[in-house]
Amino acid sequence: MVTAPSASDINRFLDQAIGLAAANVAAGGGPFGALVVTPDGRIHEGVNHVTRDNDPTAHAEVVAIRTAAAASATFDLSGAVLYASCEPCPLCLAAALWARIGQVHFAADRQAAAGAGFDDALFYEYFDGSRPDLMPVRQTAVPAADVPFQAWHDNPDRVEY
Amino acid sequence: MVTAPSASDINRFLDQAIGLAAANVAAGGGPFGALVVTPDGRIHEGVNHVTRDNDPTAHAEVVAIRTAAAASATFDLSGAVLYASCEPCPLCLAAALWARIGQVHFAADRQAAAGAGFDDALFYEYFDGSRPDLMPVRQTAVPAADVPFQAWHDNPDRVEY
Repeated sequence: MVTAPSASDINRFLDQAIGLAAANVAAGGGPFGALVVTPDGRIHEGVNHVTRDNDPTAHAEVVAIRTAAAASATFDLSGAVLYASCEPCPLCLAAALWARIGQVHFAADRQAAAGAGFDDALFYEYFDGSRPDLMPVRQTAVPAADVPFQAWHDNPDRVEY
Repeated sequence: MVTAPSASDINRFLDQAIGLAAANVAAGGGPFGALVVTPDGRIHEGVNHVTRDNDPTAHAEVVAIRTAAAASATFDLSGAVLYASCEPCPLCLAAALWARIGQVHFAADRQAAAGAGFDDALFYEYFDGSRPDLMPVRQTAVPAADVPFQAWHDNPDRVEY
């Protein structure tokens, strides 16, 4: 259950995410900032660290989600809201889904990101099926494929998520 | 440019990823393992650490990509191949796209993951547009939206990716 933020909250948090993004550029990073606001009202920040950390997954939203989860000592951020200076790419949307983020608000869109030289719009085309050539993905049948799931099923102490 | 691995290489690396996945279950983790093989022939491992680390993004493939990028001191893994014990979910595919992974091979599929209780198949439906209700995503026009991209454009020292 997510309590809908007010319009003024949305504007305020988006401005804060934009401020993080602009400051990150000045610090040598990418032009992206994000916040995760958890149901307890705490604000968890993230900025893009891809080039600084040599981490292709260190998008602002992913960093904010990882920070919020670690600070909350849980992998389940149900009821949290994600604010991003720019429309989250598929990586960030999928991270938000797995984190059980309740809703997402953003300011600039994927075309603005593309205009700045980023591949968000292109990767959306991968996921809508129009650019499968970007990365071939193939299944190979191997006899042991089900062994990990069987071990998981047989483990009474498994932590499900 | 990715040199296509041989069928025996694919089988061997998938078996190795499956072995990591099964060992991770025994260690209390999720039933997923992955390898990134970089063009220099080095093998970078990853297993699922979501529950152990309270990190909803710590999927085996993401961990392997982050490990490979850090070990290679680059955010660009062009020419690398990703092997996964199970079909990568949208988070992992997007991470691979951003990392410029050349090709992906997997053993078990998303239905096997669903059968084990994981939401991979459900999140694929989010990306094919049939389940937008899973997470509302909304744009709000704020006056400062373009400020970070303008700062990026004006920064002659920006590191593009």
